[in-house]
Amino acid sequence: MTDDPKTIAFVVYPGLTPLDLVGPLQVLSALAQLDPRFRTVVVGATKDTVGTDTPLRIAPSHTFDEVPSPFAVLVPGGGAPTLRAMADDRLLAWLRTAAGRAELVTSVCTGSLVLGAAGLLDGKQATTHWMFRDLLPAVGATPVARRWVEDGEVITAAGVSAGIDLALHLAERLAGRQVAVSIQFAVEYDPEPPQGALDRANQPDEALKPMREHILRDGLAENPALLAKLLAHA
Amino acid sequence: MTDDPKTIAFVVYPGLTPLDLVGPLQVLSALAQLDPRFRTVVVGATKDTVGTDTPLRIAPSHTFDEVPSPFAVLVPGGGAPTLRAMADDRLLAWLRTAAGRAELVTSVCTGSLVLGAAGLLDGKQATTHWMFRDLLPAVGATPVARRWVEDGEVITAAGVSAGIDLALHLAERLAGRQVAVSIQFAVEYDPEPPQGALDRANQPDEALKPMREHILRDGLAENPALLAKLLAHA
Repeated sequence: MTDDPKTIAFVVYPGLTPLDLVGPLQVLSALAQLDPRFRTVVVGATKDTVGTDTPLRIAPSHTFDEVPSPFAVLVPGGGAPTLRAMADDRLLAWLRTAAGRAELVTSVCTGSLVLGAAGLLDGKQATTHWMFRDLLPAVGATPVARRWVEDGEVITAAGVSAGIDLALHLAERLAGRQVAVSIQFAVEYDPEPPQGALDRANQPDEALKPMREHILRDGLAENPALLAKLLAHA
Repeated sequence: MTDDPKTIAFVVYPGLTPLDLVGPLQVLSALAQLDPRFRTVVVGATKDTVGTDTPLRIAPSHTFDEVPSPFAVLVPGGGAPTLRAMADDRLLAWLRTAAGRAELVTSVCTGSLVLGAAGLLDGKQATTHWMFRDLLPAVGATPVARRWVEDGEVITAAGVSAGIDLALHLAERLAGRQVAVSIQFAVEYDPEPPQGALDRANQPDEALKPMREHILRDGLAENPALLAKLLAHA
């Protein structure tokens, strides 16, 4: 007799950055193929197709209501639409319930701001896209500049592509190193960034602050209290 | 007066590996934001939602008919469904016409087998997922074991995650190093594979040959001639 598979739920909302979602989804769907103790699902308010910040449109496999008690949750990030998701009551209500029951609560990029808006980062160490990292205290978290940050059941990843590293780390935590290496072979994850490593000394933090403020004001135009809270840390 | 934007068309077909598509789509959609000479579109036989090899469903932004003359084409890969795409007359017909007019013809993973099935790899050096690389001569190409292989207007990438590297290379080729580095910051592409680099000496080539044959027979069950051609190289 075996338990039902442990469900890893990937959250969809309109306008997200699809690589935040698809990087870890591909890795952990490979985990589910290699280890039938796990399954992946993509959850949203409805199963309707929604837009992303690229021309691709995407659709969940399940509604929030159909997945009330996942084993793990992953929230992807994005720009202004992710800030709007920080004030999406339906999304936040599901997230609070699901995360309360889940053994792992994870995010990629600014998805951690959504976790924070749901009250799930209080007193936690966390990370997010470098451009938004110093906003984390506004949602109760202590920012850490790492590729991914593990604080108990909460694991947050840096920007966009960091979700792949997070997911391979999770695969090892859940199923061991050998399975994680098999997945790494399956997705041939042997990166050769053509421009080399990021030159953090030349990271355009200050130069992009006006753009960041524009994104905040765009995403939170209808939520002046939350906007003010974030701008106080900006 | 400016020309219309140069269109980079990402091909969708049922059952593909979404990271093959979304990695480069995210990178080149960022290029389009930074450099309005370019735009990205996602093309398919129809705009209907199709499945992938994960629980995510996806939908194109345009039909093949709406994008007859793209500047660049990218074909993502996958498992058995990609082999079925090698015999999809509608997809191949569009690809031959579009690629004939395009300045760049690209693929990720086994997407190169689809390019080859369309007759677009004759006499070209190319690559694909490591597990399928020795099948490339069956579609007229000379296999090369590199992260991406550039042979004139044809650029092919290795498996799945290699599409991100391919796309950052393309961004530099199209818009220069500074723009490519800005995109790299935007997607925070500073990989830290948790299990380290792939240990190619322990790549399970021989161990996976039965699985590969199963994928070939599954995908090409209705195309015995193509199946025999590929098995002759397997």
